[in-house]
Amino acid sequence: MKKHFLLAPGPTPIPPEVLLALARPIIHHRTPFYEGILQEAREGLKYLFQTKSEVLIFASSGTGAMEGAVTNTLSAGDKALVVEGGKFGERFSSICRAYGVKPIVLPVEWGQAVDPAAIEKTLKEEPSIRAVFVQATETSTGVLHPVSQIAAVVSRCPGTILVVDGISHVGAVELPMDEWKLDVVLCGSQKALMLPPGLAFAALSDKAWQFVECSTLPRFYFDFKKELKNLVKNQSAYTPAISLVVGLAESLRLIRKEGLENIFARHARLARATRAAMTALGLRLYAPQACSDAVTAVMTPPGIDGQKVVKILRDKHNLTIAGGQDRAKGRIFRLAHMGYIDQSDILACIAAVEMTLQELGHKFELGAGVKAAIEILGHG
Amino acid sequence: MKKHFLLAPGPTPIPPEVLLALARPIIHHRTPFYEGILQEAREGLKYLFQTKSEVLIFASSGTGAMEGAVTNTLSAGDKALVVEGGKFGERFSSICRAYGVKPIVLPVEWGQAVDPAAIEKTLKEEPSIRAVFVQATETSTGVLHPVSQIAAVVSRCPGTILVVDGISHVGAVELPMDEWKLDVVLCGSQKALMLPPGLAFAALSDKAWQFVECSTLPRFYFDFKKELKNLVKNQSAYTPAISLVVGLAESLRLIRKEGLENIFARHARLARATRAAMTALGLRLYAPQACSDAVTAVMTPPGIDGQKVVKILRDKHNLTIAGGQDRAKGRIFRLAHMGYIDQSDILACIAAVEMTLQELGHKFELGAGVKAAIEILGHG
Repeated sequence: MKKHFLLAPGPTPIPPEVLLALARPIIHHRTPFYEGILQEAREGLKYLFQTKSEVLIFASSGTGAMEGAVTNTLSAGDKALVVEGGKFGERFSSICRAYGVKPIVLPVEWGQAVDPAAIEKTLKEEPSIRAVFVQATETSTGVLHPVSQIAAVVSRCPGTILVVDGISHVGAVELPMDEWKLDVVLCGSQKALMLPPGLAFAALSDKAWQFVECSTLPRFYFDFKKELKNLVKNQSAYTPAISLVVGLAESLRLIRKEGLENIFARHARLARATRAAMTALGLRLYAPQACSDAVTAVMTPPGIDGQKVVKILRDKHNLTIAGGQDRAKGRIFRLAHMGYIDQSDILACIAAVEMTLQELGHKFELGAGVKAAIEILGHG
Repeated sequence: MKKHFLLAPGPTPIPPEVLLALARPIIHHRTPFYEGILQEAREGLKYLFQTKSEVLIFASSGTGAMEGAVTNTLSAGDKALVVEGGKFGERFSSICRAYGVKPIVLPVEWGQAVDPAAIEKTLKEEPSIRAVFVQATETSTGVLHPVSQIAAVVSRCPGTILVVDGISHVGAVELPMDEWKLDVVLCGSQKALMLPPGLAFAALSDKAWQFVECSTLPRFYFDFKKELKNLVKNQSAYTPAISLVVGLAESLRLIRKEGLENIFARHARLARATRAAMTALGLRLYAPQACSDAVTAVMTPPGIDGQKVVKILRDKHNLTIAGGQDRAKGRIFRLAHMGYIDQSDILACIAAVEMTLQELGHKFELGAGVKAAIEILGHG
C-alpha cells in the first residue's frame, strides 16, 4: 500500500468535495444552470480577492493571466519595471520582451525581498514607466515581497499601475486588493484555491481598466475587455473549462465557510511550525527575513543535494515536495503549506524530512524538528 | 427525478471511466508518474491525429490553439486565405486582424461547403498567401468542408500551409493528417475526445515547422516551439491541466480500444439516422449537400423559432442540444452525435424533438422520425 502526500507549491491537494464535483456529468455552458454556478463563483472570487472588481476567469495556466496582464495594459515600446527575485519575476521580463515592452529589471538576490525604496527611486528616475510587476509570494524562493508598501509608492503615480502575481499567494496570505490599491491581481487554480491547474484569474482596478483602453498590444484569447463583457452576463468569450468552474464554485464555498481570516491564520500557524522545525534540524531558511506563509524554502546543508531530498521523500516516503529551480536547483527544497493542508500533513512531512536527512548523513537530534513543530502547533 | 441528456456539439458527454479519472487525487506534474501518463497520451494523440508528428497540448479552450496556429506560423503583414462559412471561419479572420495578418476572406454561404477550385483560383491570383485556414467541420453550420481536396491544392504551393480546425471533427470523422498532407491540425478536448473543455491540441507537419522558424509574430503562452521542446521530454512549458491530461490518457485508451475505423463508422451511422429522421419529419437540413457526421444542423419550419425548440427540449425533456449562432440564430437547431453518444441517445433525442415540434404546432406524422432512424439503425 502506498498513500501519497502532496506538499508541493502547486499543484496542491484537492478536498474530496471538490474532486467529486469534478466527476459530475458535464453540463453545457450556455444554460441557466451553468450561469447560476458561474454567478456564485464570481461572488466567491470577489470575496477571495477582497475586491469590488470582477475577477476574470481564463481556461489556462497562471502564465496565461501573466501574459494577459502585459498585453492588455501596455503598448509596444512602453517601459515596465520588473522585480526579478526568482523564476517567476524573470517570466514577466520574458513576456514583456516577447511583446516589445522594455523591461527595466530590478534585480533582487534570490531569497531576499525587494526594497520598496528601490522601486520608488527607479520610478522617480524613469517617470515614463507604465507598470510595475511583482510577485506577492515568489514561488521559487518562498519570499514574501512587501506588496502593501510597493502599492503605497505606485498608487501615487497616476501613469503607472502595479501588477501583482498572487498565484502562490491569494487565499493563503493576506492581499486585500482594494484596501491596498492594487491595480492587477493574478491567481491560478492549483494553489490555495484547492483545484487542479487549468484556471487563471485576473482582477483589475478602475485605474488598470483605463490602461486597457489605451493599450495597443495584440491579443485575442486573453482579451480582458471581451472576457469582462461576457463575465457580467455569467458567460465567457470562449468555451470555459466547465468542470473546473464547477469545482471552483465548490472550493469557494469551502473558503467562505472557513473564512479568509481563519484561513490566513491556519497558513501562518503551519508556516511557523515548518520554519521552527527546519531550524531545529540545523537547516537554514532560504528567505529568513521575508518568509511567505504559503511556501517554505529550506537550504540543504553543504554536501547534501536538494534534489536527493526530494527524490528520497518521493520514492521512499510517498511524499511529494519541490526542489529548487534554475540557480537554486540542488541547493534548496520547498515545503508548501498552501490550500487543503492541515497540521497532520505538516507533521508527517517534517518526520519524513528527518528520516531523509538521516539517510543522507546530516547530523541532528532525531525528533527535534517534529518537537519544535509540536511546540507551536500544540498552542492551538 | 431528472435525467439529463447532452447532445450538443461541445461539450459532449463524458464516459464514467473518464469522469472517475478526473476525480482521482491530483498528482504532481514534475514526477516520473505523470511523465508516464503524458507519454501514453502522446502516443494516443498521434494515433488519433493519424500522424507521426507530435501533438502539442495546451491548457486552454480550442480558440487558444487557433490563435497559436496564426501567431506561430505567420508574420505581421502576411496574407492568409480564410474560408468563412460560419462562426468559426470568422474567428480565424478576427485572430489574423488582431495580429496584423491580412485575411483574404473567401466567403461561403452558411450551410454550403467551400469549392476547392475557388481556393486554387485565389492562390493563383495571390501567390504570396502564406496560409489557408479552414474548418474540417464548421460547428455552427454542420458543414463538412472538402479538406482532402483543399490539401491537394495547397500542398502543391511550397510557400503556403493549410491550417485545419479539426475541433469538432478529429476523432469523429476521418481526417488523416499525414496521408492528406495537412500542415496544422487543431483540436479541442470537449468534442469527440469525450473530455471536459480545457485542453487544446495542435499538430504541425515538417513544412509547418519550417514556417514557425520564419514567423515573427509575438507569442508567449501559446509558443509552439517551446511547448514541443518540453513535450518530447514528457513535460510542458507551464503547469499543465493535470487532471484533464489524466482524463485524456483514459479517453485515448477507450478510443484505441474501439479503433478509429469503428468510431468513424459509428458516427456515420448515427448521423445518417439523424438526417433521415429529421427529413421524415418534414424538416430541411441546413447543409444538405455537405453534412458532417459530427453534428447535424436542422432548419426549423417557417414560423417556428429554433431557440424555442432548444428551450422546450431542455426545460421539458431534459435534453440539451444547441441552437443557431449569429445569423443562423432562431433558424436552426443542432444535434450532435460526437464522442460518447450511442443509438439510444439519438433515438431518445429524435423522439423528444417530435414531442417538441408537436407542441410547437408543426404538422407531421408522429413517430415518423423515430421510424426512419430505426430503419437505418436496425441494419447494424
